[in-house]
Amino acid sequence: MSMVSASAPLLAHLADVDADLLARAARVRLACFDVDGTLTDGRLTVDAEGIESKSFHVHDGQGLVLLRQAGVEVMLITARRSAAAERRAGELGVGVRTGVADKLACVRELVAERGIGLDAVAFMGDDLPDLTAMRAVGLALAPADAHAWTATIAHWRTRARAGRGAAREACDLLLGAHGWTPPALVDGGCA
Amino acid sequence: MSMVSASAPLLAHLADVDADLLARAARVRLACFDVDGTLTDGRLTVDAEGIESKSFHVHDGQGLVLLRQAGVEVMLITARRSAAAERRAGELGVGVRTGVADKLACVRELVAERGIGLDAVAFMGDDLPDLTAMRAVGLALAPADAHAWTATIAHWRTRARAGRGAAREACDLLLGAHGWTPPALVDGGCA
Amino acid sequence: MSMVSASAPLLAHLADVDADLLARAARVRLACFDVDGTLTDGRLTVDAEGIESKSFHVHDGQGLVLLRQAGVEVMLITARRSAAAERRAGELGVGVRTGVADKLACVRELVAERGIGLDAVAFMGDDLPDLTAMRAVGLALAPADAHAWTATIAHWRTRARAGRGAAREACDLLLGAHGWTPPALVDGGCA
Amino acid sequence: MSMVSASAPLLAHLADVDADLLARAARVRLACFDVDGTLTDGRLTVDAEGIESKSFHVHDGQGLVLLRQAGVEVMLITARRSAAAERRAGELGVGVRTGVADKLACVRELVAERGIGLDAVAFMGDDLPDLTAMRAVGLALAPADAHAWTATIAHWRTRARAGRGAAREACDLLLGAHGWTPPALVDGGCA
Repeated sequence: MSMVSASAPLLAHLADVDADLLARAARVRLACFDVDGTLTDGRLTVDAEGIESKSFHVHDGQGLVLLRQAGVEVMLITARRSAAAERRAGELGVGVRTGVADKLACVRELVAERGIGLDAVAFMGDDLPDLTAMRAVGLALAPADAHAWTATIAHWRTRARAGRGAAREACDLLLGAHGWTPPALVDGGCA
Repeated sequence: MSMVSASAPLLAHLADVDADLLARAARVRLACFDVDGTLTDGRLTVDAEGIESKSFHVHDGQGLVLLRQAGVEVMLITARRSAAAERRAGELGVGVRTGVADKLACVRELVAERGIGLDAVAFMGDDLPDLTAMRAVGLALAPADAHAWTATIAHWRTRARAGRGAAREACDLLLGAHGWTPPALVDGGCA
Repeated sequence: MSMVSASAPLLAHLADVDADLLARAARVRLACFDVDGTLTDGRLTVDAEGIESKSFHVHDGQGLVLLRQAGVEVMLITARRSAAAERRAGELGVGVRTGVADKLACVRELVAERGIGLDAVAFMGDDLPDLTAMRAVGLALAPADAHAWTATIAHWRTRARAGRGAAREACDLLLGAHGWTPPALVDGGCA
Repeated sequence: MSMVSASAPLLAHLADVDADLLARAARVRLACFDVDGTLTDGRLTVDAEGIESKSFHVHDGQGLVLLRQAGVEVMLITARRSAAAERRAGELGVGVRTGVADKLACVRELVAERGIGLDAVAFMGDDLPDLTAMRAVGLALAPADAHAWTATIAHWRTRARAGRGAAREACDLLLGAHGWTPPALVDGGCA
């Protein structure tokens, strides 16, 4: 597969990337990410005045932006109503759906609107509410510390933990499968 | 024990679940959880204006909700007066007692009100103020990073650390012992 | 030494507690703790509005309270001007000195006021500003992740990291050396 | 090289410090640090009201201050517009450039203003936006958990992770290479 060699420098740090996984990743045109426990480390910080906060990772954000620039649509999908998730999505220029009770139904709507198949969708999730969506899409991904129930369903589990670069590994996989290489690595001939 | 096979897929990721532990867990009708160091990683964040915050984990919250849905009552019990604990309990739809000086006395009141025995109570704790309650109940649980004094008293110590999924492991144990299986794992015949 | 056997259950989880260390700990009447990087994990969180926060650990707080109850005075000493440190000290009922440019001078004042010797002082610190005080006192302690320069000067380095139970290990050592045993471990004959 | 023996106690805790690295470090007169993922652990915390916070480490701050006192100019350079980074820089008395789209261009301006060469610049970074600057300067550094793309370009990768002492290791290397030794380690003859 030509894309394998094209993306070799990009994928060198990833584990267990076989031809089937690359083929699944190469078909993806819409990449969906759960928020809590996938784009964050799962912590919900609550203060005495009831203000909630959560922590995103700068590596993940960089990956989502690169994915968008490479032509893969990015969508955050969360069951929680979260102003923080909306703000983070806005900052990165990616889509977001909050308060989603049924994530698979949400994904079905998205593919219908875009006229693409479920095999063109990647879904990264970490717990029970993500299971049905993960089983329906072409590429199911889970962070290293996802709940055991999702981990067995995922086509690929990242080495990094959620909120600590897991989503970035997913982005790197997708970017590599699409043959994208970071300009700064190409310019100047860096190996 | 028939419940063992019924819950096998659910419990596959748990370590050291023997028949005695399952029997204790199967009797539980009220599951009590300390907050700081059990449902959180023990950190109390204080800002310059005196506002305190603490971090709960989304996996733990999911487990507490499933436990409640499976018919096991959930109660957070903390010595600290904590608006954050009250808010988190309200969000999850579980009970909460804050400012509890004597946790064993609190547990005794709860069992008296419900007309159940102490053997129908699980208590998960991590430090000195939890010891007497843990010794009195049918099932005493401790996070991986509980203080050594509680760890030796617990019937079971989770692999996950407090605030990082320890309570979820406790919930999974209780759910498995009650023969509950997540619908998304059953539908579609996922192993 | 009779106190060794008396405190055996309390000290069982501690590493490398030899007779010299116990003798040093038994002489301590004033236990001083640096704040950032000793009682916290070293993180200083700053928000866009300039409000700073830091995180204390509930296990450490429990240890400081027990130490105070066992008759050892506790003092937090920090170079930083920190409202958060003052609030945490107030909550635990221990002393605090903030904005301390010279920690050894501060310790000398404290011993002079109390009419005790430097050998009756323990100082737990993690970095350069703690070095001179640590070298002067009877018992110098450092968290597992203290800077290498302090680590070599400490009489004892805890297994736990700063802000994750390091100070609690120091408290347990001091409590054990003073022959104190937690009531909940004695009542009911728990081993 | 005489500086090697002079700085031996200071560098003893560092790994892989060879003569070439020391020579590069000894030439540095301007030390530049990326912020998110280099001086922080990469987490961007967002609350429901849109207030962003990030966490710096007290060990790193101590190192930056020592570097400045030892005569090496320190500059924080970040693509993000960040009031928190500006506050932290102000507190430490070091320079800061925020909202920097092109970090290499920023570095070129800095060296031109100072009349120094790029070989007198150290740049510590962790991800794609840091690559071109890292390849241009005399000493490129990366935290242990930097993205794989930067890690291969760095002359030296620290043992500590970003926001957990990585920058301090970089400071220790630079201080050691400049023959600086902490006074508290010299006074009293501590080894």
